[in-house]
Amino acid sequence: MSIYAEQALAGSKLAGSRLIRQLEEGDPQGVLGMKAIYAHAGRAFIVGVTGPPGAGKSTLVDQMVVVLRVRGHRVGVLAVDPSSPFTGGAVLGDRIRMQRHALDEGVFVRSMATRGQLGGLARTTREAALVLDAMGFDVILIETVGVGQDEVDVAELAHTTVVASPPGMGDDIQAMKSGIFEIGDVFVVNKADHPGTDEAVAQLRGMLGMRGCAEGDWLPPVLRTIASAGEGIAELVDTCFAHRHHLSDSGLFAGHMFRWELHVFKELVKEMTFDKLFGTHNENSRELELLVQKLKARKIDPYSAAESLVQRV
Amino acid sequence: MSIYAEQALAGSKLAGSRLIRQLEEGDPQGVLGMKAIYAHAGRAFIVGVTGPPGAGKSTLVDQMVVVLRVRGHRVGVLAVDPSSPFTGGAVLGDRIRMQRHALDEGVFVRSMATRGQLGGLARTTREAALVLDAMGFDVILIETVGVGQDEVDVAELAHTTVVASPPGMGDDIQAMKSGIFEIGDVFVVNKADHPGTDEAVAQLRGMLGMRGCAEGDWLPPVLRTIASAGEGIAELVDTCFAHRHHLSDSGLFAGHMFRWELHVFKELVKEMTFDKLFGTHNENSRELELLVQKLKARKIDPYSAAESLVQRV
Repeated sequence: MSIYAEQALAGSKLAGSRLIRQLEEGDPQGVLGMKAIYAHAGRAFIVGVTGPPGAGKSTLVDQMVVVLRVRGHRVGVLAVDPSSPFTGGAVLGDRIRMQRHALDEGVFVRSMATRGQLGGLARTTREAALVLDAMGFDVILIETVGVGQDEVDVAELAHTTVVASPPGMGDDIQAMKSGIFEIGDVFVVNKADHPGTDEAVAQLRGMLGMRGCAEGDWLPPVLRTIASAGEGIAELVDTCFAHRHHLSDSGLFAGHMFRWELHVFKELVKEMTFDKLFGTHNENSRELELLVQKLKARKIDPYSAAESLVQRV
Repeated sequence: MSIYAEQALAGSKLAGSRLIRQLEEGDPQGVLGMKAIYAHAGRAFIVGVTGPPGAGKSTLVDQMVVVLRVRGHRVGVLAVDPSSPFTGGAVLGDRIRMQRHALDEGVFVRSMATRGQLGGLARTTREAALVLDAMGFDVILIETVGVGQDEVDVAELAHTTVVASPPGMGDDIQAMKSGIFEIGDVFVVNKADHPGTDEAVAQLRGMLGMRGCAEGDWLPPVLRTIASAGEGIAELVDTCFAHRHHLSDSGLFAGHMFRWELHVFKELVKEMTFDKLFGTHNENSRELELLVQKLKARKIDPYSAAESLVQRV
């Protein structure tokens, strides 16, 4: 058994963090750890908080942690940053304030970096969420920066997705619409003491009205918060739990992760089969190397090269 | 040979568009098409235009097309939208204005949708760029919405990445920093007739100064544009070509795509091997199905399930 998994299950945040690092780095020890923690996971309520830059997501998450702690929850926070190809690390930025929770045993904050793996962000974030889940953090907040496909992928991990926006976005709300709008379960206009709040709320409600809604569907509410003053946060947390109950009632809470488990399973099978058949110590690895050289010289296309290699299986 | 590839190479935009659709949908005919067009591609100059919502990217791209056309280039435009999980399609939004190029034989505009494939956006965008490239569009503009990992992935496709931002972002520029800032080759403060332009330019230059730069490196310039009035666009296009020359001089232009070809090749090998070994008509497919059932019931973790299956290879 993985030593980090064992220590993490016993309550060590340091060990949990190291296990997540192993997973990010593709360390085989990380897989051992995941096998060990898997049976202990599957209970946490995962809430995604996303929205465009300037929405005040970090402050919102920070205040949600405060409310959740008062209510006795143990809270995990995963701050997802796009990787920096140049620094290889996450830029912490204004997340520094989250450090005030660092001494609280009931809070586990971790920044996620993608380290340039394609499609790797959602996968390592999900694995990190499973680690926190297994460690007994019963509410996990995943904060994502920006608008894009990675946000959609990460948001699909969450049971409940909070979409935050600043007031006064005007036409730019259209840009949001094309990305994360469709995946929101709860909408928040943050900085609601700023001008343009009423317009933003009305605009969001109008757009939600167009989404169409069958009987018994969850109609996403639009809330107002002033995260910097802690206003509206308790209502936001209440609404997230109301959505959780809705999911449970409709049988959607359990099994939510299955699509992901299945995806991970298939990806693992593909990778492991590839290593087994074409890895360094295999007779096919020389053929692979020859094809890569031809590819580099543009003497073959990737499609024909792949077919040629797979024929050997 | 793929009929669409043949017709696309002969100049049919409709056929080119249908081939791209096949690639998006994972149609095996698409792969046949890619094999056919591959030898004809590899010459186009690919320019990514990215930046946060509100930067005016679509207008910028629209005006770059005008300048490039005057200079005799044939221009492809790929507008990358995050997929909408609900509609399954791209939201066109203000891109409608690009339609004024629809009657110009020398311009090919295509919106890309991701259709929910994980990590699929960069791949299909790259394939679409190859199609346009093979069709003789010698400059390809890829416009991406928002800030996130998909933007980083897509931007890595481009030879030259233009990062556009609106003036007056203030602290929000930090949010941009964490995403696409590091990958920019050319920076543009658009809407430069708005207040806050000087500050934004100075802030960007300050951040770029911190990036560090060895002798002979390309130091990304910061330009001002008013795309809605066509101002500064010729200089922007000149600067993109200056970066292209820099890449050629440093031997980085050719071979730029190799990393991607290699990635595609390996992904294809993995997929094809999986289908061959565990596909529907295979003796292992029943074992796969049993493991999926156990996974659904949480009786096994994905890691152990994968190992169990791969042992049969």
